[in-house]
Amino acid sequence: MLVNGKHSNQISIRDRGLLYGDGVFRTLRVIDGAPLHWPLHYQKLLYDCAAIGIDCPELGLLTGELEGLLENHPDSVVKIIVTRGEGARGYAPPSVTEPTYIWDVSPLPDYPVDWRKYGIKAILCQLRLSNQPRLAGIKHLNRLENVLAANEWDDADIAEGLMMDTAGNVIEATRSNLFMVVQGQLITPELSRCGVAGVQRDRVINWANQHDVPVQVRDVSLTEVLLADELFIVNSIIGVWPLRELENRQWIDFPFTKNICLDMEGVE
Amino acid sequence: MLVNGKHSNQISIRDRGLLYGDGVFRTLRVIDGAPLHWPLHYQKLLYDCAAIGIDCPELGLLTGELEGLLENHPDSVVKIIVTRGEGARGYAPPSVTEPTYIWDVSPLPDYPVDWRKYGIKAILCQLRLSNQPRLAGIKHLNRLENVLAANEWDDADIAEGLMMDTAGNVIEATRSNLFMVVQGQLITPELSRCGVAGVQRDRVINWANQHDVPVQVRDVSLTEVLLADELFIVNSIIGVWPLRELENRQWIDFPFTKNICLDMEGVE
Repeated sequence: MLVNGKHSNQISIRDRGLLYGDGVFRTLRVIDGAPLHWPLHYQKLLYDCAAIGIDCPELGLLTGELEGLLENHPDSVVKIIVTRGEGARGYAPPSVTEPTYIWDVSPLPDYPVDWRKYGIKAILCQLRLSNQPRLAGIKHLNRLENVLAANEWDDADIAEGLMMDTAGNVIEATRSNLFMVVQGQLITPELSRCGVAGVQRDRVINWANQHDVPVQVRDVSLTEVLLADELFIVNSIIGVWPLRELENRQWIDFPFTKNICLDMEGVE
Repeated sequence: MLVNGKHSNQISIRDRGLLYGDGVFRTLRVIDGAPLHWPLHYQKLLYDCAAIGIDCPELGLLTGELEGLLENHPDSVVKIIVTRGEGARGYAPPSVTEPTYIWDVSPLPDYPVDWRKYGIKAILCQLRLSNQPRLAGIKHLNRLENVLAANEWDDADIAEGLMMDTAGNVIEATRSNLFMVVQGQLITPELSRCGVAGVQRDRVINWANQHDVPVQVRDVSLTEVLLADELFIVNSIIGVWPLRELENRQWIDFPFTKNICLDMEGVE
C-alpha cells in the first residue's frame, strides 16, 4: 500500500476523501504482473478527477508506482484512490490543494467458476438510484447508495443486484455495468443521470463497434431487461458474467455473451 | 484528535468511511468548555447511524472522551465522525464490523460579526440536490453535492448558498438549514427527499412550539422564499444568521429573527 508515494496504510482524518467522499477511484485486475487496461483506467481517473476539479497525478508518476507495487503481487486486484487532499474545515475546496493518491493491493476474489460459465443469479434491488447529472458516470467516493443496495441480500448464491432509477429505468448493478442482447444487438443503459461508467463497459462498446455489432446506449426499462435474449454484466475484476436468473425469468444459453467473452478476454 | 479512543490523527486507508463515505458525522460548538447541546447531537448521531445500519458507540463512552478532549480546547468546534469501520473489499457491509469513531477539534471560525447582526448575503446555487429518500435528513459522509455547491462562489462577501432540488423546491443552504418568517409564522423546508436535518433546526422548531409560534415543515418554492418577510439560516456553529440579500431581494430589518436569536442564544 502506498499513500502519496510512501509505504503507508494510513491517511489523515482531515483528508477530504474521508470527510466528504471528495475523491474518485478505480479498481483493476492484475494478471501475471500486468495491470489490465491500465491506460484506460488512467483516462477514466483523469476524466473523473477533472469532473470534480481535482488535479490528477500524472500518468508517468502513477505508472511507475504501480509497476513497483506489482513486483510482489503478480495476480491481484489493485485499487487507486485520488482525493482532493487535506484542507481547512468546510465544504468549499481550498484554492490550493495537494491531492492524496493511494494504492491498495488485494488478493483476487474467490468467485465460483460456474458464474462465468453458467451465468449468475441476480436480484432487483429495492433502492432506487438518485439523479445527479453533475456526478453521473463518475466513480467517486460517495457510494452509500451502492452500500445500501449491496446490503439487500445475504444469499451467497446471489452474485449481483440490479439497480433502477426513480423513473424505473434499469441503470446498472451494484458493482458492474449491464448489457442486453436483443436480436443480435447490444443495448446498455445510458448513464447521464446516475450510475458509474466502467472501463469494461467502454471496452464492450468498442468491441461491438469494431465487430459491426450495433450497440445502443439509451434508457432501458425493466420489461425490456426481462425480455432480453441474453443479459450480461461486466466490470474490470469479473470480466463478463452472463445472467441465468433475474426475478422469475431464467436464461439457459448465452451464445452471444460467450462469443464476447472469448473474443475480449480469451476465455470461454 | 482521537481515533477509537486513542490519540491519533490517522485512519486506515481501508476504512469504509474513506472508501465509500460509509459513515455519519456531527459538528458542534464548544463555549467555555461546554459542548453545546451535546445530548441532542448524540441523538442525531445515533439516529443517523441506525438509518444506515452502523452501531453507534454508546453515549457514556463518547461523553467521557469529549470531556477529556475539551479540557485544552474550551472554545472550539468539535467534530465527531462514526464510520462502519474496516472491512473486506466490496460494497456489502461485513456481517460484523467495528465502527471507527473519530474526534477532531478546530478553532472557532472567524466569521464577520456583522453577519449575525446585519444579516448575510446569500446566493442561489446552480447545483440541484438529488432525491434519495433513503438518505434524506442524514448527515452522512457522501457530501460531494455540498462540495460542488460551495465551490460555486469565491466572494468572501457571500456567506452561504441556497440549494434547490430538481423540482425547484428550496431545501437548505450548503452548511445550514433555512427558515422563512411569513406573517409571524415559521416555515422550513421538508427534508424527506434530500437535505440534512440539523440539531439547530430542531431547536428552532422546538422553540416555536414552546412559544406558540406556528411552524410549518413543508415544500417551499423559490418564489415563496423571495417573498418572505424574513429569512434566516441556522447551524450549530453559526447559531442564527438573518439574510439581508438573495438574488435581487434585500431585507433590512429582522425583528422576528432577532427575537429568536435573543431567546435561543442569549445574543442580539
